[in-house]
Amino acid sequence: MTRNIKLVIAYDGSDFHGWQAQPGQPTIQGILSDLLEQITGAKPAVHGAGRTDSGVHAWGQVANFETESAHPAREFARALNALLPPSIRIRHAQEVSAEFHARRLVTAKTYHYRIYRGSVVPPTLWRHVLHVPRRLDFAAMAQAARHFEGEHDFSSFAASTGSEELDRARTMVRNIVLSQMCVGTNGAEENDPNAAAEWLYVIRGRSFLRNMVRKIVGTLLEVGRGRISPAEIDDLFELRDRSCSGPTAPAHGLSLMSVEYAAEYPPPDFEY
Amino acid sequence: MTRNIKLVIAYDGSDFHGWQAQPGQPTIQGILSDLLEQITGAKPAVHGAGRTDSGVHAWGQVANFETESAHPAREFARALNALLPPSIRIRHAQEVSAEFHARRLVTAKTYHYRIYRGSVVPPTLWRHVLHVPRRLDFAAMAQAARHFEGEHDFSSFAASTGSEELDRARTMVRNIVLSQMCVGTNGAEENDPNAAAEWLYVIRGRSFLRNMVRKIVGTLLEVGRGRISPAEIDDLFELRDRSCSGPTAPAHGLSLMSVEYAAEYPPPDFEY
Repeated sequence: MTRNIKLVIAYDGSDFHGWQAQPGQPTIQGILSDLLEQITGAKPAVHGAGRTDSGVHAWGQVANFETESAHPAREFARALNALLPPSIRIRHAQEVSAEFHARRLVTAKTYHYRIYRGSVVPPTLWRHVLHVPRRLDFAAMAQAARHFEGEHDFSSFAASTGSEELDRARTMVRNIVLSQMCVGTNGAEENDPNAAAEWLYVIRGRSFLRNMVRKIVGTLLEVGRGRISPAEIDDLFELRDRSCSGPTAPAHGLSLMSVEYAAEYPPPDFEY
Repeated sequence: MTRNIKLVIAYDGSDFHGWQAQPGQPTIQGILSDLLEQITGAKPAVHGAGRTDSGVHAWGQVANFETESAHPAREFARALNALLPPSIRIRHAQEVSAEFHARRLVTAKTYHYRIYRGSVVPPTLWRHVLHVPRRLDFAAMAQAARHFEGEHDFSSFAASTGSEELDRARTMVRNIVLSQMCVGTNGAEENDPNAAAEWLYVIRGRSFLRNMVRKIVGTLLEVGRGRISPAEIDDLFELRDRSCSGPTAPAHGLSLMSVEYAAEYPPPDFEY
């Protein structure tokens, strides 16, 4: 009998060429399908909620695969964790109905982008934060972040597909339900973001264009430096030109934190 | 004019063969003296407060070196951080009096040993915690930890020098001023250590024998498993036999957190 297994996966993206399987490159999807073949004898298609780029991390990536194997779902978690490198962990595994699809049924994804403000990045953090020790205007960035909320044409904040024809054909409209600058927990003074060692950008929406979060962060950093004003974000939407927005921020500050589905696929009740 | 520079150093020990310079091996001391030669033109002796073993981390290692260079102290921090890998960071540099010596003048060192209790170690933590998901008796470990406080002959909790003669010649008496099991901050329920994802062992003293903290942690884990009772710690001191205590716990859970000196060498007032 074919069964459908849902996984919640955490990984440190530093050592991988992103989620999507590529011949000859270590990728999360590639490693998972190879190990599932080792465990079940058949190589499954592993569907991920989001194709994180090379160097991007995840705490709550979700994937599903079909199998004929009779292993209980949590046996898959145990077996995979025994075979995976410590930089990839299966946080949860459960059997779900045949209809569940990790990418198609997404209702929301939440990403975090960590910006380290202290003068020296602790050796425990450098793989997970972008170091920006220079003077930045937090209030302007926080105000600008709110401009990304709602339904917009995000052409100015997306990577090219490499094909003009494809670029014209696809819709660039996305709906962002949350876009917010926060103060991180590392030594934060609640009333003074400038005293905080870390800032966090949080964005939540159903789907994102390629490089969209990193282009938005790059643009927010330009706002922080005073090169773009918060009000100009609306002009950038109008321009539909990616060369006018900020640069693409580096991958290693970005993490896919959680993926949400409709009520029939509730998030697992984690033990930790 | 010869100047004496004091450094506070953080490192992720994962990629290094410990503090002490060894030909052909990447070590913290070796990399620092090579880079200081590159910066000043002369290779200095870099004296570290503690010779951390291969794989052991530091947040507050202290070192000093003498130089004829006229660079301001903080220029050394800036130049070293520009040349060092991100897994080694100079947190602070200051000029101190000629008498300061990072090892000889230590009044106290504090080590942390992190024990991860959750079923799955997050990919951000595996380099820095020992994973022990099995059932352990926290109360017994906490009680046993207190037995290490005070002045004792720690022969049962030290690595051999490899020479019986040397082992006999050196004093094995050490004075431990704090030895305590704590509940970590990752999801801890204050009243129930068993609900905490992480436990922390904290030990503070002026000096330690080789492998002493790791042997103590290995013994505490045996107490947690019920193989040694807290009261038996006193018997282990009497036996003066390292084969009777617990195994040496792995290096990667251990960090040198801070080093203290007399009042004339106060800790720096860190900006982060």
